[in-house]
Amino acid sequence: MNRKYLIQQIKEKRSYLCVGLDTNIEKIPPFLQSRPNAVFEFNKQIIDATKDLCVAYKINTAFYEANGVKGWKDLEKTLNYIPSTHFKIADAKRGDIGNTSYQYAKAFFETIPFDAITVAPYMGRDSIQPFLDYKGKWTIVLGLTSNAGANNFELQQIMPGDITLLNEESVPSNSYQKFEGGYLYEKVIFDVSKWGNVDNLMFVVGATKADEIASIRKIIPNHFLLIPGVGFQGGSLAEVSKYGLNKDCGLLVNVSRAIIYAGNKKNFAEEARSIALEYQTEMKSYLRES
Amino acid sequence: MNRKYLIQQIKEKRSYLCVGLDTNIEKIPPFLQSRPNAVFEFNKQIIDATKDLCVAYKINTAFYEANGVKGWKDLEKTLNYIPSTHFKIADAKRGDIGNTSYQYAKAFFETIPFDAITVAPYMGRDSIQPFLDYKGKWTIVLGLTSNAGANNFELQQIMPGDITLLNEESVPSNSYQKFEGGYLYEKVIFDVSKWGNVDNLMFVVGATKADEIASIRKIIPNHFLLIPGVGFQGGSLAEVSKYGLNKDCGLLVNVSRAIIYAGNKKNFAEEARSIALEYQTEMKSYLRES
Repeated sequence: MNRKYLIQQIKEKRSYLCVGLDTNIEKIPPFLQSRPNAVFEFNKQIIDATKDLCVAYKINTAFYEANGVKGWKDLEKTLNYIPSTHFKIADAKRGDIGNTSYQYAKAFFETIPFDAITVAPYMGRDSIQPFLDYKGKWTIVLGLTSNAGANNFELQQIMPGDITLLNEESVPSNSYQKFEGGYLYEKVIFDVSKWGNVDNLMFVVGATKADEIASIRKIIPNHFLLIPGVGFQGGSLAEVSKYGLNKDCGLLVNVSRAIIYAGNKKNFAEEARSIALEYQTEMKSYLRES
Repeated sequence: MNRKYLIQQIKEKRSYLCVGLDTNIEKIPPFLQSRPNAVFEFNKQIIDATKDLCVAYKINTAFYEANGVKGWKDLEKTLNYIPSTHFKIADAKRGDIGNTSYQYAKAFFETIPFDAITVAPYMGRDSIQPFLDYKGKWTIVLGLTSNAGANNFELQQIMPGDITLLNEESVPSNSYQKFEGGYLYEKVIFDVSKWGNVDNLMFVVGATKADEIASIRKIIPNHFLLIPGVGFQGGSLAEVSKYGLNKDCGLLVNVSRAIIYAGNKKNFAEEARSIALEYQTEMKSYLRES
């Protein structure tokens, strides 16, 4: 899915909601748990109940891998069930040396055809480039995450310095800038933004750090941000929207547990829908203002 | 597998070789490629031909995920085929917020019962702790990797500062030290080494940076290091062994492509064995000296 189509969907639905399918068989409604296709049945009902309110679905691969081969089948079936109008994110946080990252890109862009995958930046450019090289696909790189552990490394101060480029020629010389020093996550966003563009690259920015979104917008005013952490993790949609929205919206706000586990009875999908509707209604008001 | 048993295996086999099963169906011998269980058949023959020369096998999950459900089945079958005497590593480079990392730990420690998993440190302590919390299992955290992209972030200078602990009480007060400044990878190793111990934690250190292994040994003299990058990526076994070996050996040196793709005819497994034997013979001499 290209940027233009994504923005069009956001405008039509007046929503930048992403529903996170972190489906854990132990947490889905008890009446479903014993069914042979419990996870897929759950996801199917959640998708049916929320698809007019959201523009994206994010599948957290960990919850499927935890069930081995069976889980991997559920993941494929779920992806196939998501309408083609929706942006499909593999929240997989992969990243390895080039020839291995290429295999991960193949796994999530071809074998299981997602639109986007989340990628961990620790190993640097050649671990990210194989994802960026896939035409028509998106790489969503971890910037600042929403967990307590973000303090350990992401929020450490880095000395100033030039950015390191593997292929200088791929960056227009007028866009070459020096990193002035700052947090590791700022350097990650600064450098990685030079390796891709607004049409193939997004960043993960945790919503529990709403005040930092303003400073991130100074580095990347035009990129889309994938914002986890709203809902169960305590992030504020109002704050995120205030500092994060740009002229093209530029946000995908993910809510997982607060929506999918809203209810645990026969009407769980209706309950999920009513929470999704609350988020979409709030988003509609921010889109009008922006 | 516990540390004592691993060291015993190293002493008995006079080897610290880990064979990396980065099995790519396009690179295995052509006569095998069209068989229905090509990947597993290939792995089976490689394991049979090398098991007396190595102490560990490392399965690179990307190469299996690239084949979807079929690949995941091959991964399970391969793991089940590795003898219980061998240390089994999932080279998966996972890492996410705590409740998600717990699912990854479940995937690779329970559902598919590896002994160890590689983990990316970017998201900090709560992304690593769920792996460390598994009794009898090992977490292998990325320190300094062997690829060019290591320059982008791992080799950036970090300001000095206290380490950030989520649970101060879990660290004996006499082991509390201040980080004196240095590269990001040094801070990662410094901090993470406080979160686990020599019985449940190892680090990935790329062999193409042999001169840096000496400085890493000053931070963690006793931990095992998993060393990729020897062979195809150009690292030197002599250098790595000179600076990395400690009183308990303390090294697992991984070779993937140089061994498994040594031949591409009917005798490919013999060819793989002869390369593995070269590595083991060299290792034997370093173990005698140490």
